This record gives sequence, structure tokens and C-alpha cells, in this order.
Amino acid sequence: MGRRVEIYDTTLRDGTQGEDVNFTIADKVKIAEALYDFGVSYIEGGWPGSNPRDIGFFNAVKKSNVPDEYIAAFGSTRRAKRTCDSDENIQALLEVEVPNLTIFGKTWDLHVTEALKIDLEHNLELINDSLSYLKTKVDKAFYDAEHFFDGYKANKDYAIKTIKAAMDAKADCIILCDTNGGTMPEEITSIMQELIKVTCNYPLGIHCHNDSDCAVANSVIAVRNGAVHVQGTVNGYGERCGNANLMSVIPNLQLKYGYDCVPAEKLKNLRTVSRYINELGNLKHNIHQPYVGRSSFAHKGGVHVSAIMKNSSTYEHIQPEMVGNRQRVLLSDLSGKSNLIYKAKDFGLDVDSSDPKINAVVESLKELENKGFQYEGAEASFELLMRKTMGTFTPFFDSMSYRVLDEKKTDESPLAEATVMLQVEGEKEHTAAQGNGPVNAIDNAIRKALLKFYPNLADMELVDYKVRILTAGSGTEAVTRVLIESKDSESVWGTVGVATNIVDASYQALMDSIEYKLLKDKEKII
Amino acid sequence: MGRRVEIYDTTLRDGTQGEDVNFTIADKVKIAEALYDFGVSYIEGGWPGSNPRDIGFFNAVKKSNVPDEYIAAFGSTRRAKRTCDSDENIQALLEVEVPNLTIFGKTWDLHVTEALKIDLEHNLELINDSLSYLKTKVDKAFYDAEHFFDGYKANKDYAIKTIKAAMDAKADCIILCDTNGGTMPEEITSIMQELIKVTCNYPLGIHCHNDSDCAVANSVIAVRNGAVHVQGTVNGYGERCGNANLMSVIPNLQLKYGYDCVPAEKLKNLRTVSRYINELGNLKHNIHQPYVGRSSFAHKGGVHVSAIMKNSSTYEHIQPEMVGNRQRVLLSDLSGKSNLIYKAKDFGLDVDSSDPKINAVVESLKELENKGFQYEGAEASFELLMRKTMGTFTPFFDSMSYRVLDEKKTDESPLAEATVMLQVEGEKEHTAAQGNGPVNAIDNAIRKALLKFYPNLADMELVDYKVRILTAGSGTEAVTRVLIESKDSESVWGTVGVATNIVDASYQALMDSIEYKLLKDKEKII
Repeated sequence: MGRRVEIYDTTLRDGTQGEDVNFTIADKVKIAEALYDFGVSYIEGGWPGSNPRDIGFFNAVKKSNVPDEYIAAFGSTRRAKRTCDSDENIQALLEVEVPNLTIFGKTWDLHVTEALKIDLEHNLELINDSLSYLKTKVDKAFYDAEHFFDGYKANKDYAIKTIKAAMDAKADCIILCDTNGGTMPEEITSIMQELIKVTCNYPLGIHCHNDSDCAVANSVIAVRNGAVHVQGTVNGYGERCGNANLMSVIPNLQLKYGYDCVPAEKLKNLRTVSRYINELGNLKHNIHQPYVGRSSFAHKGGVHVSAIMKNSSTYEHIQPEMVGNRQRVLLSDLSGKSNLIYKAKDFGLDVDSSDPKINAVVESLKELENKGFQYEGAEASFELLMRKTMGTFTPFFDSMSYRVLDEKKTDESPLAEATVMLQVEGEKEHTAAQGNGPVNAIDNAIRKALLKFYPNLADMELVDYKVRILTAGSGTEAVTRVLIESKDSESVWGTVGVATNIVDASYQALMDSIEYKLLKDKEKII
Repeated sequence: MGRRVEIYDTTLRDGTQGEDVNFTIADKVKIAEALYDFGVSYIEGGWPGSNPRDIGFFNAVKKSNVPDEYIAAFGSTRRAKRTCDSDENIQALLEVEVPNLTIFGKTWDLHVTEALKIDLEHNLELINDSLSYLKTKVDKAFYDAEHFFDGYKANKDYAIKTIKAAMDAKADCIILCDTNGGTMPEEITSIMQELIKVTCNYPLGIHCHNDSDCAVANSVIAVRNGAVHVQGTVNGYGERCGNANLMSVIPNLQLKYGYDCVPAEKLKNLRTVSRYINELGNLKHNIHQPYVGRSSFAHKGGVHVSAIMKNSSTYEHIQPEMVGNRQRVLLSDLSGKSNLIYKAKDFGLDVDSSDPKINAVVESLKELENKGFQYEGAEASFELLMRKTMGTFTPFFDSMSYRVLDEKKTDESPLAEATVMLQVEGEKEHTAAQGNGPVNAIDNAIRKALLKFYPNLADMELVDYKVRILTAGSGTEAVTRVLIESKDSESVWGTVGVATNIVDASYQALMDSIEYKLLKDKEKII
């Protein structure tokens, strides 16, 4: 492997500043365990001086399987009128008893005089003093140079003095922060190239925010210009537009340049780490997220698909398996038999291209697509369709009828009630359930009816429900397409339904979702 | 303003390759109008040779207010065994009769021999020949050098020959494409710096994909290294991880460097453009999206918030108003009233800021927005809300109750039946109607009940109906937001409803739509 680059994860501190990011202490410990297993160098757990709740995490993580030397805490330089011994923030850092501490200090002259309201020399003392003190107490003391690039542009000489103050204190790494995320890539290059003339081989790091959509590029550029330590967050969580996304920074550094960030054999866990931490935070996966998204190696265009069959490197910058992802061919235009066969193989279906039943599937598909069906994101419905058309599907139940009633009286909450009639192995099941809407009511009723026959359905839940109106211009008479995403403890699958009646479209997608779950569980047993 | 950089938008072509991106032809025309109004240089509408449906857009946009000279079509170099005159793809490009055409050709030697299966010289002929031919037929012929950076790395000499073939044909701009999105920022710099020694002042462009999370940075870097033309998409739509996001590229170039991309006075529409096009595509807004996201200037950390009060530039790289965004201080929203007045003015309502009733509207609005209401695209609901809260609205009818029944028996079409009870000027009206779905049934019933009192309702129809599920992760129990677009012979208006029950959300939006129609007609009479 190439040069070592330390990955300093701040998902649990800077990441939680994101508007939609909230983790319980138990979640935070699970995240720390996942990051340790993935192989990052440091896991910053919180800011004990600013957020007393973070102290709970530091206590809890000590009981986990994450060794102490991976854990870091965050704080600031001491206050101007205190000594380190009497500064609450510095002392709070020591009280969490972790071997790595990071403190930030001011680089930008304006902030020293306007925010701290002290003279410029005094700020240099704070930096030097605080780091020197911490160096006597813990294994590693890192220095985050806040607003480094803006400060450098405003007053280069002073910015360099602050860095020297940290060097004199023997900080273990000096991290250049683009705190407001406004720095352009070529500024990172030019400022670091100048700075390195002063810092020589002193270890430098980078901490970027994504306000200009350049945080990943800026982090990579910093490493190319000498940084040996990168701070960022999983999935780019963070305040405003987020921090540098480690799920992109790590594979860029490791796969494009051969840097050593996480153990080579761990990189294939990238996608799992990304998704696991989203799941803990109840955050949606971004299907287009570089490297780890569901669509990141998905191909729609006809030209692309035929090129991929010839040479998959054409439209893929890396092999998806390297980061635990996989290639997908989307079903936007299935008229081609070869597309269909490719897709069938993808689903692990053994299809003989000379089988005349394949033509029947192509015909069914054409007809369904004309009605508005679309199988992107609904691969489970597609697999069911193929199996049903080719005669390799045995029904688990027969749907006989359903009825849903929505009722609303003035000043009362609306009521939704559904009844369903099903038949399983000759046994008729007729039941009813309420819900907070017609689709939820029908979902509840179907599950209630089937659960006694298929208790494994208890393990399945719906994760997303999307509605799209297909024929604009016809108002409430429009055709409705419903996409449902379901999951169990092992996988996630998508199904589709199309009808003028939204309840009926939802019913179709729900039924497919349940049939797919039963099919997969049955195959597992066999 | 600084140097001119052409913005070539390919939202309607490359953007629609995105797995979740689908636009009707009517939507595409609206998008073209919005982009023209925003001030981009070119709007690429589709690939007529590959997708016959795109031809419909080119016909439709001719009837819009977008001048022809803004519209471009996309295609490829002629096939090896055809002349331009007999090549269907080239001819399909000419048939859509637009003055700007872009064709792509092969740069990477491997693709010439393996995919096209022709010799390297022959490919140079295809490029030169196709562009020379198109130059005699249209105003502008652009050349997209597919896989330029990968091709250059594989065989520099041959890659340069392909570019020279396009230069010899006098292509109006040669666009360097990072087709698989794997190129690192410093490679863009070094390759362009070498290339420019050959191309001198020949106009170059850039077309990046985001597979390495660097598309925006790479586009900016290309412009800094001489590119005068940037291709990208609104919100970064596109295949796999998407294209370079113009909503970030444009403000980076314009605000950070002073390039002239769109008219200076249009930049403040950036956020509106981003959101409008998401709404048309029924796509979620990314709250963290640089420049335009709801959280992009939102501050959560206590330190940040107090710093912002002292000096907002501290944690904001630009003034949010420059791109039509605004600062938000989370947990303590201080700007409610001014925001409301700003919004009211935005909708053309004349509001006196000293009116004490404004505070009541702020309270209602806060409560409704917490529930998931959102008034972009639903100005009619916002106006009704303001009037109702301020006491300037006289009800046209009282809604008493409704009931909807959906029923489906095996092998029968689903049935939807609604009953509504209303009261108009003391007179109770109780009626029923069928529909092809629950919302349509209820719509029919309401109209039937009201038509005898308000015959002008016959003039109104629903043109679009959109459903968005707000809380992902909770399946069919999610909160539903319904947006309805209605029109009469004179205007188009949007309304919104939010509820866990989709029927109830639809009912709210329908009621607003009808009330707004009655209100506007009454005002006309007065």
C-alpha cells in the first residue's frame, strides 16, 4: 500500500450538527463499533465542554469493544482569562479520559479581535498554552485551525503565526479547516503549497465543509498536497451542507491513488457502513451517492447497456464490488430480449434464451409498460412477473376481494377501515382492520389475514411508499403508479402497482411485496 | 462582469437518464421555459435518434416562449458504414429543426477498436465528417469528446488527434467529457494544461459526472484552466451518481470568481429554479444541497449561532439572499414575521407589516409547516390561509362530512363511490357520485353538490395531482402531502393538503381549489 493517511471520523460530533441527524447514545456506540471495525484511525465522540450529553457517550463506549486509543474528544483552546488548570472546557476534555483530544483555535485575525476581543499575540498564547498543557496529559493533542483558509487569505502572516504556535507546542497534527465551506479547490492547492514551505514535514490535516459542493475534492487535493490526516463524516452528515463525505474521500484516496486509509480488505464494507449508519439515524439512503448508492452503478441508456455487455469498464470508473456495490441494468426499455435475459440472470433466474416463454414475458412487459408499469426500483415485481409468466411460481394465497371505507365528519378525525377476503390452501379468511389512511388500513388487514398462515410476515415492514401520477392533464382521473419499498432483517425490495384507483394500485404493490417475501423465505428453506 | 462562460443545460437529456427522473413532455417545456428565464445559454432537449419520444418535446417547445436559438439536440457521429446523408441518427438530428446540435464521438482508442470495431484513422474521419456536415446545416455544432480524460490517459497522441479532427471541422466548441466520472481534480488540471498547448485558444467545454463526488469541483477547475462552456444538469440529475450540478457550478463561478454565467440579476432565482424543477419531477428537495437547500444556511450549534449574530460571514461563505436562500437559526426562529411578509409579497399580496393580525398568520403558518404543509406550488392555499386568518374571507359553503368506499372483487374492476354533505347558505346538500378512484369520486361528488349554487364551477378542471410521502421509514403510515393544480379559462392555481390519510389530504386540497376559484370569480364581479 501507499502512504498512510489517517481517517479521523467526526460523524458523532460535527456530523450530529446536521439538522436531521440525531443519534441516541446507544446508536453512537454502535456507530463507533462499526467505524472501528471498518478501520478508521480516530473516532471523535463529542464535545464534552459544549454538550454535557456527550459525556454519556464517552462513558458508554468504554464498555464497548472499541479500544480506547481510537476515541477522541473535541474542545477549544482555553479562555483568555483562565489558566488551563481552571478552564472548564479544557478540564471537561480531560474528565472524559480519552487518549486523543482535538481543540480548535482562531486563525482569522478578525475573529480574534472581534469575537474573542483579545489582541493577536494573546491568541497565539492561548493556542500554544492549551496544546502544551494537553500534551502533558494525553497521548495525542490535535489542533483544528478554524477558518484557516479564510484567515490565510485575510492575513497570511498572522495565520502562519497561529500554525507556528501549534507547532511550537508539538501538536500531533495541525488540521487546516475550511470552516464555512467556501474555499475553491485551487485555493486549497495554492495555499497549502505556500504553507508547506513554512511547515516543512510537520503533519498537516484537512477538515472541509461542503457549502460549495467541493468538500470531497478539496480533501483529496489537500492530501495530494501533503495532508496526512483527513477529517470528515459518514455520508457527509453535518451542519448546513455537511462535512466532507468519508464514503467518497476514502475510496478516492485508496482506489485512485493507492493511499492506505482503511485496511484493503475492509473497503468492500464501504456500502454496508454507509447504509448501516443511515439506518441507525433513520435517514434515507441517497440512491445517487457516489460509490455506495443503489443507482451508482445502474445503467439506463440503451447505448450504455450494450457497451457494458461488451466492456463494463466503459461506464464504470471502478469495479462496484470493490466497495461492496453492484452493477444494475435498469428496466427502462425492455423491448429487447437481450436486456430481459441479462436482467433475469441478475435475479439469479436460470433462463434459456431459446425458451419460447421468454417471448411471452416480453409481450406481457410491453403491455404492462404501456399501462404505466415501470420496473426501475421494483425489481421484486419484475421477478414475480417473470416467474408467473414462465409458470415457475406457485401462489401462496388467492386474493378474493377487498373493501375500504374512508369517512370524515366535521370536527372528527378521518376514519379508514378495510376488509379483505383471501383464500389460503382452500381455507377462506375474511377479516377487517383500521388504519390511519386507506392504504395503511388495507395493509393491516392483509397482514392480519395472512399472519396465521405465514408467521414470517411479522419480520417484514414497509419502508417507503411513493405515488406518482402518470397522465398529467387529467386531474384526479389520472393513472396512479405506486412504488413500495419493503424490508426484512436481510434485504430490501421494491414493488409496483398501477391503476386509476390509487387504492387498487397500492393493493397490487402490497400484494407483490408480500408474495416476494414469501417466495424468498421459501427458497431459503429449500 | 468577468469572462463569459456558457451554461449548457442537459437536464432534459442527460438528466433524464437518472433512475428516478421522469418528465412528461409538458413538464419538459415548463423546464425549458424556466431555464430560458433563468438565463442559461443552451437547453439540450433530447436525443431524437435514440429516443423517438424526445421528438415530441422539440415540436412542443417551438410553441413555447423559448426562442429557437436556445434549444439544442444531442446525437452521435455518423455510423462507420453510412454517409451523413444516409445516417438515421444524423438525419433525425436535422429533422427536429433546431439551430444547435451536439454530437459525441470516441476519444479512447480502445473503444474505437473494441466497440466501433473500426481502425483508429476511420474514427477520425467520422468525427471530422459528421461535424463538417452539420456545420453546413445548422448554426452551431458542438463536439462532446466522450471519455476524453480516460482516453487521454490511455493514448495521449490519439486523444489529441480526435480533438484536432473536431477542430479541423470547425466545431463551435469541443467539450471534454469525464464520461464515467472517475477523473480526479488534479488530472483535470494537468491534462487541460497540456491540451491547451495544442488547442491554443480554441473554445473548450467541460462535461463531468459525479461518480467520484468531484463533478462540481472538476467543472470549476476546468473553467479555471480555460473552459468557456460548462455542461451540467439542474440539481445534478443524471445517470448513476448524476451530472455536474449546475445549481452549484453557476454560483461557484459567478460569486467566487465573477464569471458571467447567467445575468447577475437572475442569480437570486437559483433556489426557485432548483425547487420548481424538483417539484415538476416529483423529486424531494435535498435539504443539505449547497446554496439552495433548506439547511444550507441553517445554524444549529450554539457557538455558531452567537457568532452569526456578531458577524454572519463567520459561518456563511456567501450571503444566502444572493441565491434566493435565507439564513435560518434553528431552535429559535427569529425571522418569522419578516419571512411571511417576504412570502406574501412574493405571492403578490399587499400586506401591511404593522397589522397585528400578521402575527396570527405567522403562528398558523408555523403550525402548518410543522405538519408538513409547504406552499411552493400551492400559492392559492397560501392566499386562502392568509385571508382566513386575517378575517378577510367569507365562506362560500360549509363542509359537513364525506365518505368514500373502494371495493374490489376478483375479476371485477374496482369501484369507488363517494358521498358528501355540504351546506350552502343554510341549505343542506347531500349527494353521491362514482369515480375511477377515491379522489376522483369525491371530486365528482363535491362538484355535483355545489354546481347548482355555483354554476361557474363547470368552467374549472383539475390539471395535475401530485402525491408526496413526507416521512420516509414509516411505510404506509407516512404523512401524505397532496398538491393539486387546477385551471379555468383564465388561470392556473395550486393548492395543498396534508394528512396521514391520503383521501383526507386530497379533500383538503380539492376544497381549497374550489374555494379559490369561487373567490377569484367573486372578485371579478366586484
